[in-house]
Parts: sequence; structure tokens; C-alpha cells
Amino acid sequence: MEDILKQVQLGKMNIAEAKEKLATYEDLGFAKVDHHRKKRQGFPETIFGEGKTAEQITAIIASIQANGDAILVTRISKEKAVEVRKTHPELIYNEVAELLHTEIAHKKTASTNFIAVLCAGTSDLKVAEEAAVTAEAFGCEVRRFYDVGVAGLHRLLDNIEEIQQATVSITVAGMEGALPSVVGGLVSHPIIAVPTSVGYGANFSGLSALLTMLNSCASGISVVNIDNGYGAAYNAALIHRLAEQKEEE
Amino acid sequence: MEDILKQVQLGKMNIAEAKEKLATYEDLGFAKVDHHRKKRQGFPETIFGEGKTAEQITAIIASIQANGDAILVTRISKEKAVEVRKTHPELIYNEVAELLHTEIAHKKTASTNFIAVLCAGTSDLKVAEEAAVTAEAFGCEVRRFYDVGVAGLHRLLDNIEEIQQATVSITVAGMEGALPSVVGGLVSHPIIAVPTSVGYGANFSGLSALLTMLNSCASGISVVNIDNGYGAAYNAALIHRLAEQKEEE
Amino acid sequence: MEDILKQVQLGKMNIAEAKEKLATYEDLGFAKVDHHRKKRQGFPETIFGEGKTAEQITAIIASIQANGDAILVTRISKEKAVEVRKTHPELIYNEVAELLHTEIAHKKTASTNFIAVLCAGTSDLKVAEEAAVTAEAFGCEVRRFYDVGVAGLHRLLDNIEEIQQATVSITVAGMEGALPSVVGGLVSHPIIAVPTSVGYGANFSGLSALLTMLNSCASGISVVNIDNGYGAAYNAALIHRLAEQKEEE
Amino acid sequence: MEDILKQVQLGKMNIAEAKEKLATYEDLGFAKVDHHRKKRQGFPETIFGEGKTAEQITAIIASIQANGDAILVTRISKEKAVEVRKTHPELIYNEVAELLHTEIAHKKTASTNFIAVLCAGTSDLKVAEEAAVTAEAFGCEVRRFYDVGVAGLHRLLDNIEEIQQATVSITVAGMEGALPSVVGGLVSHPIIAVPTSVGYGANFSGLSALLTMLNSCASGISVVNIDNGYGAAYNAALIHRLAEQKEEE
Amino acid sequence: MEDILKQVQLGKMNIAEAKEKLATYEDLGFAKVDHHRKKRQGFPETIFGEGKTAEQITAIIASIQANGDAILVTRISKEKAVEVRKTHPELIYNEVAELLHTEIAHKKTASTNFIAVLCAGTSDLKVAEEAAVTAEAFGCEVRRFYDVGVAGLHRLLDNIEEIQQATVSITVAGMEGALPSVVGGLVSHPIIAVPTSVGYGANFSGLSALLTMLNSCASGISVVNIDNGYGAAYNAALIHRLAEQKEEE
Amino acid sequence: MEDILKQVQLGKMNIAEAKEKLATYEDLGFAKVDHHRKKRQGFPETIFGEGKTAEQITAIIASIQANGDAILVTRISKEKAVEVRKTHPELIYNEVAELLHTEIAHKKTASTNFIAVLCAGTSDLKVAEEAAVTAEAFGCEVRRFYDVGVAGLHRLLDNIEEIQQATVSITVAGMEGALPSVVGGLVSHPIIAVPTSVGYGANFSGLSALLTMLNSCASGISVVNIDNGYGAAYNAALIHRLAEQKEEE
Amino acid sequence: MEDILKQVQLGKMNIAEAKEKLATYEDLGFAKVDHHRKKRQGFPETIFGEGKTAEQITAIIASIQANGDAILVTRISKEKAVEVRKTHPELIYNEVAELLHTEIAHKKTASTNFIAVLCAGTSDLKVAEEAAVTAEAFGCEVRRFYDVGVAGLHRLLDNIEEIQQATVSITVAGMEGALPSVVGGLVSHPIIAVPTSVGYGANFSGLSALLTMLNSCASGISVVNIDNGYGAAYNAALIHRLAEQKEEE
Amino acid sequence: MEDILKQVQLGKMNIAEAKEKLATYEDLGFAKVDHHRKKRQGFPETIFGEGKTAEQITAIIASIQANGDAILVTRISKEKAVEVRKTHPELIYNEVAELLHTEIAHKKTASTNFIAVLCAGTSDLKVAEEAAVTAEAFGCEVRRFYDVGVAGLHRLLDNIEEIQQATVSITVAGMEGALPSVVGGLVSHPIIAVPTSVGYGANFSGLSALLTMLNSCASGISVVNIDNGYGAAYNAALIHRLAEQKEEE
Repeated sequence: MEDILKQVQLGKMNIAEAKEKLATYEDLGFAKVDHHRKKRQGFPETIFGEGKTAEQITAIIASIQANGDAILVTRISKEKAVEVRKTHPELIYNEVAELLHTEIAHKKTASTNFIAVLCAGTSDLKVAEEAAVTAEAFGCEVRRFYDVGVAGLHRLLDNIEEIQQATVSITVAGMEGALPSVVGGLVSHPIIAVPTSVGYGANFSGLSALLTMLNSCASGISVVNIDNGYGAAYNAALIHRLAEQKEEE
Repeated sequence: MEDILKQVQLGKMNIAEAKEKLATYEDLGFAKVDHHRKKRQGFPETIFGEGKTAEQITAIIASIQANGDAILVTRISKEKAVEVRKTHPELIYNEVAELLHTEIAHKKTASTNFIAVLCAGTSDLKVAEEAAVTAEAFGCEVRRFYDVGVAGLHRLLDNIEEIQQATVSITVAGMEGALPSVVGGLVSHPIIAVPTSVGYGANFSGLSALLTMLNSCASGISVVNIDNGYGAAYNAALIHRLAEQKEEE
Repeated sequence: MEDILKQVQLGKMNIAEAKEKLATYEDLGFAKVDHHRKKRQGFPETIFGEGKTAEQITAIIASIQANGDAILVTRISKEKAVEVRKTHPELIYNEVAELLHTEIAHKKTASTNFIAVLCAGTSDLKVAEEAAVTAEAFGCEVRRFYDVGVAGLHRLLDNIEEIQQATVSITVAGMEGALPSVVGGLVSHPIIAVPTSVGYGANFSGLSALLTMLNSCASGISVVNIDNGYGAAYNAALIHRLAEQKEEE
Repeated sequence: MEDILKQVQLGKMNIAEAKEKLATYEDLGFAKVDHHRKKRQGFPETIFGEGKTAEQITAIIASIQANGDAILVTRISKEKAVEVRKTHPELIYNEVAELLHTEIAHKKTASTNFIAVLCAGTSDLKVAEEAAVTAEAFGCEVRRFYDVGVAGLHRLLDNIEEIQQATVSITVAGMEGALPSVVGGLVSHPIIAVPTSVGYGANFSGLSALLTMLNSCASGISVVNIDNGYGAAYNAALIHRLAEQKEEE
Repeated sequence: MEDILKQVQLGKMNIAEAKEKLATYEDLGFAKVDHHRKKRQGFPETIFGEGKTAEQITAIIASIQANGDAILVTRISKEKAVEVRKTHPELIYNEVAELLHTEIAHKKTASTNFIAVLCAGTSDLKVAEEAAVTAEAFGCEVRRFYDVGVAGLHRLLDNIEEIQQATVSITVAGMEGALPSVVGGLVSHPIIAVPTSVGYGANFSGLSALLTMLNSCASGISVVNIDNGYGAAYNAALIHRLAEQKEEE
Repeated sequence: MEDILKQVQLGKMNIAEAKEKLATYEDLGFAKVDHHRKKRQGFPETIFGEGKTAEQITAIIASIQANGDAILVTRISKEKAVEVRKTHPELIYNEVAELLHTEIAHKKTASTNFIAVLCAGTSDLKVAEEAAVTAEAFGCEVRRFYDVGVAGLHRLLDNIEEIQQATVSITVAGMEGALPSVVGGLVSHPIIAVPTSVGYGANFSGLSALLTMLNSCASGISVVNIDNGYGAAYNAALIHRLAEQKEEE
Repeated sequence: MEDILKQVQLGKMNIAEAKEKLATYEDLGFAKVDHHRKKRQGFPETIFGEGKTAEQITAIIASIQANGDAILVTRISKEKAVEVRKTHPELIYNEVAELLHTEIAHKKTASTNFIAVLCAGTSDLKVAEEAAVTAEAFGCEVRRFYDVGVAGLHRLLDNIEEIQQATVSITVAGMEGALPSVVGGLVSHPIIAVPTSVGYGANFSGLSALLTMLNSCASGISVVNIDNGYGAAYNAALIHRLAEQKEEE
Repeated sequence: MEDILKQVQLGKMNIAEAKEKLATYEDLGFAKVDHHRKKRQGFPETIFGEGKTAEQITAIIASIQANGDAILVTRISKEKAVEVRKTHPELIYNEVAELLHTEIAHKKTASTNFIAVLCAGTSDLKVAEEAAVTAEAFGCEVRRFYDVGVAGLHRLLDNIEEIQQATVSITVAGMEGALPSVVGGLVSHPIIAVPTSVGYGANFSGLSALLTMLNSCASGISVVNIDNGYGAAYNAALIHRLAEQKEEE
């Protein structure tokens, strides 16, 4: 802020420009798209699809594309996606993860870094894929380790050596949510734990897995909201970038 | 009931006797001791020490001993135990488990059956010992596997082959309570899971571990109340007896 | 593990074999079927039908049958079952319990042991039948005692002498869930208590019955998740097997 | 109100009198004692002792006695009671129930009606006695049936015929709180159920028993707050009075 | 029980008869109808309609009518009622209260006693009517005082003198559920409070009103489950009968 | 009341008139419309549309209009509104806010006072509009500041100087509900905070935002029920009127 | 902000001054006192005493007094207050409300406006006094209406005409918290409702009263945190000021 | 594992050695210290002090020091620390953070990276310091930004440019816990959010802040358990190391 104030004082910048510099969003009426954040972080604009009409989503996409950016729509049902793709046939719809996005160009770098995405059971797949594809859309290399829940421990142990090579793990689990605790004891990188609402009875829509992960006796685990695969990927991508920058130097 | 009715009808039993047959307790005024149950099950009378005075406990002990039975007092503080032992110096006090009991005569049978008592961390020791000593007081062979929580998986895997030989496991864990889920995937006998109130923050006095255990994705796990080491041992002893009877035949 | 290590050291086993020995599952892509567990326990493979498509279920069934094993699918709706039975007409669908399974061949043994399945009211029938049929599919003899809730105590007392002969009881109850407490005071075998989500108002989807069962003042009761008839049967079958083995010797 | 308005209109009552007629309390500064209610109902004034100093209690007692009424103080600790009795040595302190009251003159009527007070275990005694003595202070005949919890059903069944003769039952239970459900199926008079905070673990300070009683499958049960023995007695006395009036006619 | 034992001893009763005497229910397969209770209490058999098919309800009705008793079905939807009435056109369906019942013959007695049914708002009508019609089906005189919630206090005060004449009040309220507290301070008969699930937001499906009623600072209030109009009427009828018996003498 | 009593005493008012004076509602059978309150407060009659049929709503509208008053119906679905407007085409339906109301005549006063309505995200729009339009229907000037959530702080800071000029703010937020805390630190007028049920996972239908607002470390914030835009507007209008009265003098 | 930018541009303000303008707090190391807010609002600085040592409180007081401002310390125990008054004997300690403050000079204005502070029972006194004295310290006229709970409605109705004259009411209630609902139906000014943690059993530390107030069917009620008398007074003073400004003009 | 198997096969490693390789802990009887993990991660051994005696802590310290490692004891009270320091006077006790640790040698590297530790209020200091000192003990550079809660936004904005330079932020907040949401919108590095149990009333021991953080509308935030400053630091250190490794290359 001091820089801007100085330039205003020196007459190098007029007030309209100064205000513009601080403007960080475009107001589309029903949504204020935050372009500034995008520039700082290199991640594509993300549109939360739930509760928006196909028309609204289509309009926001047009606005972002006009800015030259990639598209990522989360939590968009098949019906809405079909509608939106009439206008934007170039976008790809991932039905399992309920994501609509610009084709993901896999990086060609020398880096061997990757984010590990684990899930405990097949019913956690939706959330795990939301995390995995989001991380890929954010330019990260991802490797998937699915159905490795603790009740069949050998499935996890068979893959643990590869998982240990990741820069960061996203660990998705429903029911009792014990997977992050076990993984936390076996790896030495940060773990983003994602409780899912998968389960029944005293699961209470994911509360059981959420509490398990918050109370984990293993270190190096932090937690995001129930079913929040997107949030986990966002966190993981921020962490992963630190290692990537290292490699790229 | 039909038998008794028949004998009354045939005049082989008078009404007072018939009523006596159905009487299953002795009324001490402040407590009705259930002698009948004891006889059916071969387990010593158990006195829940919490909320009873040393005087009341002493009186109940006398009554049970008059019946020729062994003594087991649970949840009795050191102060009360010291007081009670002035009258009953023959009883042994286990400070960790807060149990007061008749000396336990380890059986000399050919059976190699045992109950495995596992706990996740050192802070679960009190509950684990309550379970272990109670099971011993009920005449069961017990083997302890302590501090084998999932965050350091090798500590569990090192002992798993021995644990697999047990007739039944009592698995005690606080914090996130993930231990039974992992053990459940590695053994093929029934597991009694005991959540403990050990933890802090979103542990909510054991609720976290309780929900974890109820929602376990592993099969063969049933759950008792938070910190209820005694209840777990009672269940385990009932199950263990089935295997013992087999051995003894 | 030591055995395998020794054989490898002695050259009696090569590394591929050693790894195979530890392999306990078959990876079908969308599911990793745990064949190892099955062999250890003699129970048929179980498929949790909820959240799987008819196609997925059909594929898993084929894989298990190729292995020569019996089939048990839980929580499968009538619609899906009709679809699956087009390919597998040999399977039987139990509409009340929502189970699809290989025809159950009732054992012809001298054993008179049985598992007692009790339920409090007619609305608990679905869960009780899930438990009863599962136990039968696991090779156990089952006797049903339905609609014996505590509000009409004579219905329970009329049957109690037969119930007392069981090796283990599965006690299913919704609303206030008091049945296990009463049964617990009348029998001397282990009781698996199953709270159901039957009720309204302050029942809170089974929470009321769940807390009742966890806090039971009767001993010998352990609890599984709300509506988890399958889990109760799995536990009961593990316990029952101990008595069966005794008989068979 | 119309009567008063008419008398004012006719000049038979002046405005000060009219206002007085509607005044139903005496203002002691720190408390407004409701004399009107007392007159309507024939029950002695009740002072809730918790959170009041011995001085405040002493002052209120003086005010009530000046009105010629009997005294009942609930939830008053031994320390405060000793202090108050220095000024009011005529009052009797019941240490178990934590009640301080005017000596209770048992009625000499031909009526054989009574209120049955049941409790499940010895640790529910405090609440049960608060209920029993309060009902006696309200002029009701009371019979106690203590330690008749459902885990030892015969203790209840042995007394059930006498309990069935009551006009109304107060049924006190902690832990899982199943007693009212069983009693509700055996008697045909109204039952006031009182959950107590007795228990541990997933009892959650009486929540478990409270939910059990609210969800009871037996009819004829209504519930008061956790540990609210006084409230139960108040309700029971209101009901009992209906039967008494019948007898007295 | 002693009487029966004596008669058996004296040979006045054979064992089959003795067992029959204790039989209190008829087993229809999917339901065990409790005829004994009915005889003791003079209330018509009640069928809980929720979760039963029209066929099941029709069958139970036939069984009860064969016994010469009146019919009351609660929580039966319009669709099911239409179906049942094809076989039983003599039954009356109350759409608001979702009750199906034998025509209610209003008593012709000299008694002026009545049960007051109050509700706070128009959205509590369904529960209030379930209570009112049930009480009428149980032979009680009922007077309705609807939409008298505390936010418009004059609506209550205008009717309070008539309400005070009741033998017992059923007070139904959703949202914050304050009505029983205010009524409790104005009448001197017992109040059965019924929380309803009416409300939104932090109402949590009736929890708010339930807690309010349990914590009421007014005396003479006991509580039944959320939306349990039937239960409230059952309680009220038991209490009301005491006053009626008085009148009839 | 004293005034009325005096006039009765002096014969200036007869009893019927005195009773009429206290009558504050009109009884339409299924609803008691409170006309008195309306006169005191100058706010149009409000009809809570949820749970009422189109017919009922139409009838109440007729009754209010007969009284010469404006109409405001809240929480009325499009289907019902279409139905009602067949009879009352003069009413305006606001689809976003689900309000049906008399055309709002914006005041022509010199006052520059206004109520600020803020919301955090586009999904809070429905609740924010319910608040804004209700306040307008109550005769208040309203300015909207939408999509100013704390995650993009500049959107709020850009508008804060105008918001500071308001007499009172209504601040609507879902998810974590942090907006009122930030606004509370930046303005010096009262804030009515409205949590919305917008969110997922551990949001628990608005509980998260509700707790946040109740625990706000900023002063000057009070809270209404989840999604209660109407209630917030009612509160704000009462406060706003104080400033308006000042201006008008 | 634009003004400051303009003045910087015009050279009328240098950058240091511009930054100073935005500085709103003084950093005392362990606390950052917000002087700016104070100036805007005319309320004395408030120190939250809980969790601060007497030394820390003494130091903050010195700093505020150096600024010429009045002192208000909330939630300060008697022990700490005695300690602080050794240095600041000019401060007054209110033991009931646990407030320490500069002597309050009651305004001498022609205004007859006042804030009404109501509480339901004597045990709510602490919170009510915290609210009343805080409001007085903020320069508001306060009138107290204590022990006017709804169970003895006449106590409230006797005072309602005076309460109706207030600009705003603070309504404090524990247990079931029904008082604001009743008051809300009788007055036409805004009500700040304060739930207290007074109660027992299913009160759950004030949760019962909190939910009641949030769900109130009366309009014009907003709610602050449990026991938050200070927050209620802050809100009320902001509202009251609007009326005062009117009078003063 | 394959490597070890191969070496065993080739006779290069005997079985005892192979087993040793997998041993990752030292068994001290009451604790199994995990040396393996330590070596992998370069963090000093951490001892959770709560629930351990001074003797136990002293013994573990000796064992770790024998291994040549640094010491960090968390949640150790002053009393215990004094006792332990009799044997280990070289350790430093941090009273605010309740940490006992080896003197921390601040690194002398060219790196300008740092972890930002923010807290909302002075009462969050204990948790913030536990995080800050733990991170320092793990070799990280830390900068503290305390008392920057959202109610006084300028305190945060004054420091935001420096905070933006951090590799990762630990953001500690109690009460409503809104700080991470605001910071999340202003920085582009990962944020570890720590809810504290600071607050009262509807804070429910930190639940309010926990839910706020889990539901944050800002991205890049993950959450650890309530009051878990140590866990936050562990996570942050894992992330920070990635950036450090980059710098060091």
C-alpha cells in the first residue's frame, strides 16, 4: 500500500489508477469474480456449481475465458453439465467427480514429484476423484491409491513405499475414518485428511470420520470439511508448489 | 417354571419353596445382592465401588464372603481401599486398575487359550488393566499387548501373530480409537472394543473413539461403553468360556 | 512371517512366491476382493450392495463364484436384485432383509446349538432378518423370537427358557431400546445388541436406542452400529463357532 | 375478571381492592413469594435452596411461617441446613434427599391410596428420596420400591402386585433408564418418569436415560427433567389428589 | 401369582389353564395384539399405522373387531385409510389428525369434567387433534383451545378461566414451546406438555420445544415425546379417569 | 388497565366496551389475526405462508384488506403465489425472497437514513432479499451490499464507508458466518446477524454460522434464527424507526 | 480513504500522517487497546477481566486513564478487584455483577427515555446486573424489573405498562428462557434476549434457553451469547442512543 | 521390504538382522519410544507430558538423550517441570506454552523463509506459543503476529504484507474463530488453523471456532484439533521444510 501511496504522492499515479490497483474482482451482478487472487496463485478460476443455474455457470465461464484463463467447475450435476457444454463443447465433464473443466495439459517437467491421493473404500471415490482431478487442473502430478482402507491392511502396505515418495498426501475416508492415522505413522510428508459422509447409523453424515481425523494420535495430519475434495486439493497444491519450485530451480 | 408348577401340583413342593426357588437376590437394605446370577455363571460377585462408602463396601464384602464367594470391587479409590482393607486385609488392591479383589489363583489347566488385551497408548492403561484383571478374576488366562496404537504400526505387527491365537480380544483405545479397525482386519476371532475418554479438544470425553468403533469398516467388532473395561472383560469371559469348555472336554 | 523368511533364506521359496503368500486380495478395479480373509474364516464373501450398481455387483459375484465360494449381498434393493438375478437366477432374494444370497444349505449336525435373534417390535423386522439370514448364510442354526419388547413383558418371559439355551443372542430394538437390558438379566450367554433407527421425535434416528444399549446396567452386552444387522450376525457367528467346534469334537 | 369489573362498576369494590385481588405474590426484595398459588393448591411453599444463601433461606422461611404455612426447602446442602436450623430448630433435615422441612404429619384417613416411588439402583436413591419426601410433605401416602432395576427383573416382579395398587407411580432410573418402559407394561395408572444423571461414559449426564424415557414404547409415561425428583412429586401429588378427593367424598 | 399357584396346588386349576391365565396377547404373525391390557384399562385397541401396510392394518382391525372392541388407528395416511375403508366402511377417517377410528359415542353422564387441549399455533393442529380425538376415543370429554400461543397473550388469558376447570391439560407447542410454562403458572391441575417438530432453523426438529418443556420453571408439567399427541392423550385419559370415577360414585 | 377500570367505575364505559378494548385479535377459525399489534406498530400484517394452503392464505388476505391494511406473506412458494394471485392480482410476488406483498410505496421524506443489508455470498441471496423486501414493506429505506464475504475482504472495504452511514445493518452469512464479526469492528451502529443454512459437511444446516455469530468477539451484534430474514428485518425496522422519528421531528 | 488519498496527492498530508490516521490501537504488549473505536462511540473502554491477572488489568487501567477515559472491567472476581483497587481506590466494585468501574455520573437530561432490564428469576441476577450496570456506565438510564418469570405471570403484567415505555428491553432468563417470548407479544420496542446458564439437567448449560429465544414465535427479539449481559447492554446502548439523540435535538 | 527379502535370500542378511531392520521403537515398559520416525524426519523426540508423572518424563528424557537427541516435552505443568529440572537443569521451561525443551539453537542460514504464527486475542497466547516454540524447536524460523483478531481489522491489515512473505501460517483463534477466513483471503500460502477452547456460553469448549474453520469460505485452510498448537507446528514444519530444502540447494 505504501508503494501506491508514494506513487500517488509523486504524481506518477492518479487516484483512479490507485483505486483500480486495489480492485480485485469483477462484478457480474450475481457474482463477483476474484481475478486478482487468480493472478497471484496461478490456479484457474474455480466455480462452485451447486446452487447456480446452467445459465449462470455459462455466463461466468464466458467471463473467465475472456480473461484467457482455464475453467474448473466443481459440484456440477450431469444435467447442468450437458446444458453448459452446448455452449462450451470444449470443456470436459468428469461424471464421477462432478467436475467440468478445460482439458488438462499434463506438464512435461523433469520433476518426479507427485501428490498421493488415497481413499479407504470404493464409496469414497467421488470425493477422492474431486481431489485428484482438481489437483491435476492446478498443474500437479497425481498418483491414485484407492480402496486401501485399514480393515485390509496389506492393500495399504503393498503400496506404502511409493506413497512415501509423495510431497503431500490427500487421504480420503468415510465410516470410521481411520486411514489417515495409519498413513500418518508411515510417511514423513504432510497429510491432508478428508472425512466423507459415507456410512450409516452412528456415522452421523461424516461426523464420525471428522472427529477421528481431528483426534488422530499420528502427527502431520490436518483436516478439511466433510466431502471437501476440492479444498483438500487446493491445500495440497499450495504445499506441492513449494517442492516443485525447488525442482525447477 | 412349568417344572416348579408341576411339583407344586404334585405336592412335592410347597408354595414357600416355590417362591424361594424364584428368589434370586439377598436384600441388604442399601443393596440387593444377586446370588442367583453368580451361581449360574461361576463369576465372583462384583461390587461397583463408585458412589458407595467404605462402610457399605465392607458390609457387602462380608455378605458375599459368608456365601463362600470371591470378591471383586471395581472403581474403588485408593482411600476407600485402604479403609476397606483394615477389615479385609486378605484382599489385594490394584492401584492402576482401581480394583480390590480376592487373590487370583491362576488356573492349572492344559488349555493354551487366552484373552488378548490390547491398548493403543499408555494413557489407556487404567481401562486396559481394569479389563485384564477383571478377566483374570473371572478365571481367564490373559495376555497383555500395550502401547500398540496405529500411529506406530510396527509395534502392532510385531505382536500380531500371537494376538491371532487368542479366543477373543479386548481392544482399548482413546483419542481417535482406530486400533480395533486395524486389528479387526488382522484376526479372525471376536473383538470387544472399549473407547476411552483419553484425549482432548474435539475428543469430547470419548465420543470420538466411541463413534469410530461403532462405525468400523472391519467386521467382528462390538463395542461397550466409554472406559468400561469391566464390561469388556465380562463379555470376553462369556465368550472365552465357550472355548474353554471345549478344551476341558 | 518368520517362516516365510526362513524358507526364502533356505531357497525353498522364491521372492515372487513370498510376495504372493502375503497377497490377500484380488483387484477388480472398482473393488479389491479379500479372498484371504474368506479362507481363514469359512464365511462366504460379503458384498455391501448400497452404493454399487447392478453391473458392479454382478461382476463381483462372477469373480467370487469363479473362486467356488458362496454369495451374500447385503442392503440390495429389489430393483437391483431383479437386475442381478437376470444373470444369476440361482441366487435367492430376501425382500424383507434386502439380502441376495446362494441357497442356504442347512447343516445336518448333531449339534443343538443355535443363535437366538430377538426383536422388540414388528418395525425392527428388517434389521432382525438381516441378522438372522446372514447368520444362516454363515452356517449357523438360528431361532427367531420377534415382537418381544419390554412393554409387554409376558411375551418375552414366555420364551425366555428357550432363549437361555442359545450360545449367543442378537437383540434388536428401536425406540428406547430397552430389550437387551432385560434379556441381559435373564440369560448367561453373550448378547450382541443392535439399535435400530425405528422411532420418531427425540429418537434421533436411533441415537436413543444406541445410548440405552451402551449404558445398559446389565452385563454381557456389547453393541454394534445402528441398523447393523449384518455386523451383529458376523460377531455372533464368530462366537457361535467356538461352541460349534466344541460340539464337533 | 368480569366479577371484579362488575363489583367495581356497582361501587361494591374500589380500585385499590380490585388491584389487590389480582396481586398474587409478596415481594421480599430478592424473591417474590407466590402466596396465591399456595392457597389454590394446598401445597406448602417450596424454596429452591440451590444458589441461595442460608440468610436468604432463613428470611423466606420466616415470611412463610408468618403466613402460617408449612416449609419445604429443596436442594439444600448439609452446611446450609445446619446454619438455617440455628434459627429454625423445629425443621427436619433429610440428608439423603437434601430436603429441609416442617415435620410431616401423616394423615389419618380411611383412604388406602398411595403413590409408588420406584428406583432402579442404589445410586438413584437421592432423587427417589427427594420425590418421596416431597410427596409426603404434600400430604400424600408414599410407598418405596427401591433397587428394582430391569437387569434383575425378579426384584421388580416380586413387588409388582403391590405397585399396581398405586394411584400413580414415580419411576426413577439412571444409566439406560429402562425401568419405566417395563413398569409401563405392567400397571394401568399414570407413570411419572425421572431420568437421573447417574452413569458414566456415553450416559452424557443423564441424556441417555432421558431419551430412553421419552421414546418409551409403553404408554402412560410422561417425563420430567433429569434429577428432578421434586417436579415428579409435584406432578404425582396433583394426580393423586384426584383419587383422594374421590375417597374423601 | 400366589392365587394361581394355590389353585394349581389345590387342583382347582390345571397347568394349561394356569399358563392361559398369564397369556396376555394374541399372535397374528406380524403382530402380537395385547388383549389383556385392553381389558384392564377400558381403552380401545390402538394400532400404530406408520410402517404397516393397508393389508396388515385391515387384518388387525378384523381381529380386534372379532373381539368386540372399538378401533383406533394412529398415523395412518389418507391413501392407506381409503384402502382400509374399502373393507371397513364403518370406520371414520380424521384427515387432520391422521386417525382412523370407530364412531365415537359421546357419553351421556352428569359429569362436567373435561380434558383441555391447548395448542400454540395453527401449525400445531395436527398433533393437537391427534391428542383430542384420541382422548375422545378413550371416552373423555374434550374442549379445544387452539392458537393461544404466548406471543399474543390475551388470546390465552381470555380463555384461562374455562381452562382452569379442566381435570388435566394437554398443551401442544412447537417453535420455542413456551406455552406450558405460562399455563403452568395459571392452573392447578396436571399438564401434559407435547413439543412439536414445527419450526425451522435452530429448532432442530422439535429439540428446542422439548428442552423448553423439560426445563420449565413452572411446576406440574410433565413431557412426552416430540409430536406424540397419542401418548399425551393416553396419559391424560389415565389421569382424567380418576376424576371421572369420583363423579360417578 | 387502571384507566379502563376508572372509566367503568365512573360509568363512562360499560363492561362490554371494556372487554372489547382488551380484545386484540380476530378469530378466523383456523387463525386468530392480531389487529391490535398492527395498530400499535404501523407494520402491515404478516402471514407466514409455510404450512398454509393457498385457500387459507387467500382468506386471511381478504380479512386483512377488509381492515384496510397492506399485505405481506412470507415463505410462500411460487405455486401457491400463482394460485393466490388469481384472486388477488394486485399483489406482487418476489420469487427470490418468496414474498407476496402489496406494492411498496417508497416514502418521499427528507430523511437520508437507511438500513444496510449485507450478505456474504450469492447463495445467501434468498435470505438477504427476504430481509430487504420485508424492511421495505415496513416502510424503511434499504441499501443492498451483496457478495461481500470476508474471503475477499476488498469487496467489503470498498463499500464500508457507505455502510457506516446506516442506522442499523442486517448481516447475512452462511458457511462459517464470519462476516458480522468483521463488520462489527468497522461500524458503530447495531448489527442484526442472520446465519443461513448455506454450506455443507460440518456446517450442520447453519449451526456453524449460528455459533460463530453468537460467539463474535466484536460488540454490537445480536442474532436471530437460522435463515430468519423476516425476523431480522422486523428487528431492524423497530430500531430504524427510532432514528426516523428523530428525523421527522 | 479517498479523502486521505487526495490530501496525500495534494501534498497536504505526508505518508506518515496518512498511516497514523488509519492507526486505531495502542499496543501495550499483552494487549492492543482500541482507542479509535472509543472515540467514535462515546462508550468507555471495556476490559474483559477473565483470564487477565490483576497486574495486567491495573496496567491497562492506567493506560486508559492517561487518555482521560472512564473505566469498565467486566467478569472480574472479588479477589482481583481488591488487588486492583489498592492502586485504583477510586474505582467501584459491584460484587453481584462482577464489574469494576469509574463512578457512574447519572445524566441530568430532560429525556425520560430508559432501557428496561428484566430477569426471570433471582438466579439470573448476576447477568441482569452485568447488563444494567454496563448500560449505566454507557450513559443510559436503566430501570430494573427482576423476578418477573412467566410461571407467575401477574408479576410481569403488573409492570408491563411501565416496561412498554422503554426504548429497548434487555430480557434475561435461564431454565426454559420463555420470558422474551411473552414480553415480545406485549411491547413494541426491540428486545435483546440473554439466555443464562442457570438451570440443571436437560438445561445443558444454557442451551435450552438459547434455543428457546432463537425460536421465539414473537417478533422483535434478537439474541446474544449465553450469560453475555455485557453484550446485551452494548447492543441496547447503541439502540437507545438513537432515541436519545432525538430527545436531545 | 523386497530389498530386505533379497538380502536374506542372498545370505547377506540373517533373520535376526532382518527383524531388527523393521524394529522402529525402544520399549521402556510404560512407553515405546519411536526412534525410527525421529531419524527419518530430523525432528526431536516429543513427549506428551499430560498424564505422565515427573518420574516417567525424567526416565524418557534420559533414554532420548542417551540417543543424542534434543528434547521437547509438551503440556507439562510448572510443578512437574520443576521436578524434572532437578535432574535435567539444562532444559528450559516455557511457562506460557507449558513446554520443556533443550535450548533452541537458532539456525544461521541465508534463508529468509519463516513460519507466521498469528493469534486473534491475548487469551489464545498459550496455544500460539505452544505452536511457535515447537516450530522453533523443529528448526524453523518463526515470526509472531499476536492479537490481530478480526474485530479490529486494522491490526491485521497493518501486518499483512509481512505475513504474506511466510511459507506457511499457523492461525490460532478462539471464540468465533473467524481469523483464518480473513487471512485466507489475503495470503497465497497454506494456512494451518487452530481453534482454541477460549470463549464462553455457546462456544462449547472450542466447538464454535472448530466449525467456523472447517466451514471457511476461503481456500487454503486446513484444521487441527482444538488447542493443538503442537500439531499445527508439526504440520507447518513439514511444509516449511520443503521451502527450506529449496533455499538450501
